[in-house]
Amino acid sequence: MIPFVYRCTECGKEYKRDEVKYLCPDCENNYVPGNPLRGVLSIEFDYEELSRAFDKRIPCWDLFLPIESKYLPNFPVGNTPLHKAGILGKHFGLQNLWIKNDGLNPSGSLKDRASYLVVAEASRLNETEIVAASTGNAASSLSSVCAAAGKKAIIYVPASAPKAKMLQNILCGAKVIPVKGTYDDAFKLSLEHTKEKGGLNRNTAYHPFTIEGKKTVGLEIFTQNGFKVPDAILVPVGDGVIISGVYKAFYDLMKAGLSDKLPKIICAQAENSSAIHAYIETGEYENLKSSNTVADSISVCAPSNAHMARKAVLESNGFSITVNDAEIMEGQKILAEKSGVFAEPSASVTVAALQKIKELELFSPDEQIILLVTGHGLKDIETPLKNITLPEAIEVK
Amino acid sequence: MIPFVYRCTECGKEYKRDEVKYLCPDCENNYVPGNPLRGVLSIEFDYEELSRAFDKRIPCWDLFLPIESKYLPNFPVGNTPLHKAGILGKHFGLQNLWIKNDGLNPSGSLKDRASYLVVAEASRLNETEIVAASTGNAASSLSSVCAAAGKKAIIYVPASAPKAKMLQNILCGAKVIPVKGTYDDAFKLSLEHTKEKGGLNRNTAYHPFTIEGKKTVGLEIFTQNGFKVPDAILVPVGDGVIISGVYKAFYDLMKAGLSDKLPKIICAQAENSSAIHAYIETGEYENLKSSNTVADSISVCAPSNAHMARKAVLESNGFSITVNDAEIMEGQKILAEKSGVFAEPSASVTVAALQKIKELELFSPDEQIILLVTGHGLKDIETPLKNITLPEAIEVK
Repeated sequence: MIPFVYRCTECGKEYKRDEVKYLCPDCENNYVPGNPLRGVLSIEFDYEELSRAFDKRIPCWDLFLPIESKYLPNFPVGNTPLHKAGILGKHFGLQNLWIKNDGLNPSGSLKDRASYLVVAEASRLNETEIVAASTGNAASSLSSVCAAAGKKAIIYVPASAPKAKMLQNILCGAKVIPVKGTYDDAFKLSLEHTKEKGGLNRNTAYHPFTIEGKKTVGLEIFTQNGFKVPDAILVPVGDGVIISGVYKAFYDLMKAGLSDKLPKIICAQAENSSAIHAYIETGEYENLKSSNTVADSISVCAPSNAHMARKAVLESNGFSITVNDAEIMEGQKILAEKSGVFAEPSASVTVAALQKIKELELFSPDEQIILLVTGHGLKDIETPLKNITLPEAIEVK
Repeated sequence: MIPFVYRCTECGKEYKRDEVKYLCPDCENNYVPGNPLRGVLSIEFDYEELSRAFDKRIPCWDLFLPIESKYLPNFPVGNTPLHKAGILGKHFGLQNLWIKNDGLNPSGSLKDRASYLVVAEASRLNETEIVAASTGNAASSLSSVCAAAGKKAIIYVPASAPKAKMLQNILCGAKVIPVKGTYDDAFKLSLEHTKEKGGLNRNTAYHPFTIEGKKTVGLEIFTQNGFKVPDAILVPVGDGVIISGVYKAFYDLMKAGLSDKLPKIICAQAENSSAIHAYIETGEYENLKSSNTVADSISVCAPSNAHMARKAVLESNGFSITVNDAEIMEGQKILAEKSGVFAEPSASVTVAALQKIKELELFSPDEQIILLVTGHGLKDIETPLKNITLPEAIEVK
């Protein structure tokens, strides 16, 4: 393993491994439900050593992970396809449009990458229980990876969450704890759980390994693209951790001397859940009072990783764009029809964004653009079903 | 491309490429709804040339396909993970149990492999429309691959089929034709469609490339297993085409001199849909009058490829086993809980079969056994939801 330190994304203070577990103790206030996290930690490697150790002929991304390989679960997370989407590209006037389809992770979403690394850390720390608050992809992902690794997932969830969303957790043997309250209440209880009863907390951005896990998607894009940095990557943004992970991948690659630029990182949000978009545009951060979009996986009032998400866009010369629900559902249809990829609504915001990008001529036609598909369409069939009408049935002669 | 001929699995007659398209003209009778197909064609390569052309250091499975590589769609079908399932194996007293997870194909099932090859053949023949009768995985798979390749999928479906099953087809731009009648009526209409209006017919076993496409899963298992034939592969069986494809892979490998044995091929069927099982056990074939199981993807009265399926099991020294619906649902739960893999009920029959195999001591503990997972659990959440109860919600202090 390459040596690393934790650095607070807020105050810049440095911590050694095992000196700190979740947030920067100097910046972390008592958690107030509905507020973003304070003092999210980022990981800084000894990049000189990383550069010496990495061999392009036998690329091993385990070197870029802050943990010894022996702790990684034997579960096939990642290695999802990157492929050119010629017909879809043509539709948007782009000659070089690609899809990275992370809906083809085992539990159906990119979240498996974060669960994978936190479960590895739990093994190192001899923790058998991993705790999270979630109604959706993070929970089913944690439950799956825990089952594969022989760990217990403990999921706090608002009692109002649809049963269908809980199915995968229960089948995978997770302990599901419904909470008579909001998501914020569930989140607070999950933090209390690990403080009082132990276990490792996997909440997004709260555990710094969630960002490191998600960065593996960026490392894969780089390899699959022949060790070349694409011109731009479009990322669906909710709490800001996936976009931070994508940024961290290319940051690490640059620091290790394996590449000389960042791709433009494009933030795509739902109009009614766009706290990070507003923060990027204005520089002033404010929580949303409510958030309501068909793209449920990126619906969030107080994104946990707003600072790093903003940094990703600004440092990479990217930009941010919002789309409304009708545009998102149209994006899902265009993506399926022009590429055969069935993505959940949240993962379709980038396609909706492409339509606006085309109108605004924000890309030149020959740039290499990558759409990051973060979740499978089968995750939510109810939402698109509302817009479907079947043709009339024919008689049998 | 390696030269090949078609050979009738019933009468053994040989045909050249483009001399025949679907079934053996000598054996094909007029299609009678509810009867199995007659004269299914299998493909025989020039195995000496295949052997010369294949290079283990740079394995290219395209060589094993009956079509020029240039026609293959640019769509990432296959390359699904094969991984050891240590905890699941321990549960069944097996030290060397593995999972090939084909639920991680783009449309969520192994059927993508067949669609991929038939769409390639359509490109070669300059056909723009591809026709199938299906209510489930074959349809959504064909619709996805057609969208990626810029072709039109035409899907005949009983009007009673649930809307949710049609969603993926409609989003992918397929033409869906609901039929006031049974699946057999839809099947008959789809055959009439290609006879009268043209286009290529993708019905399972009817087009011989469906078997060839499905065989790629066996070729991948061989490579991922370090060019070694495993001791046994457990396959969920409905119409008998997937199991025939698995057999064909190892048959081709043997004929090309790349391996010296077949794996034991194990047929796992649902008790209430076990026409092939009965045929294997008795040697007498009979259609079922009705078929009713939670494992809807393998529910079939008149399996299209019964002869080849039986041959796969007998020639490989395999065996056949049936399980009931309760055992299938328990199998789905055990698989999720002990491996993190969420499979649809049809893909869980093999896990249910393992329980019986354990009781009957049909495997020795150190044999390398591979479970073929054919479809993702997200394909059908309604069935397992019926058995789920959520724990009581807790109050927030």
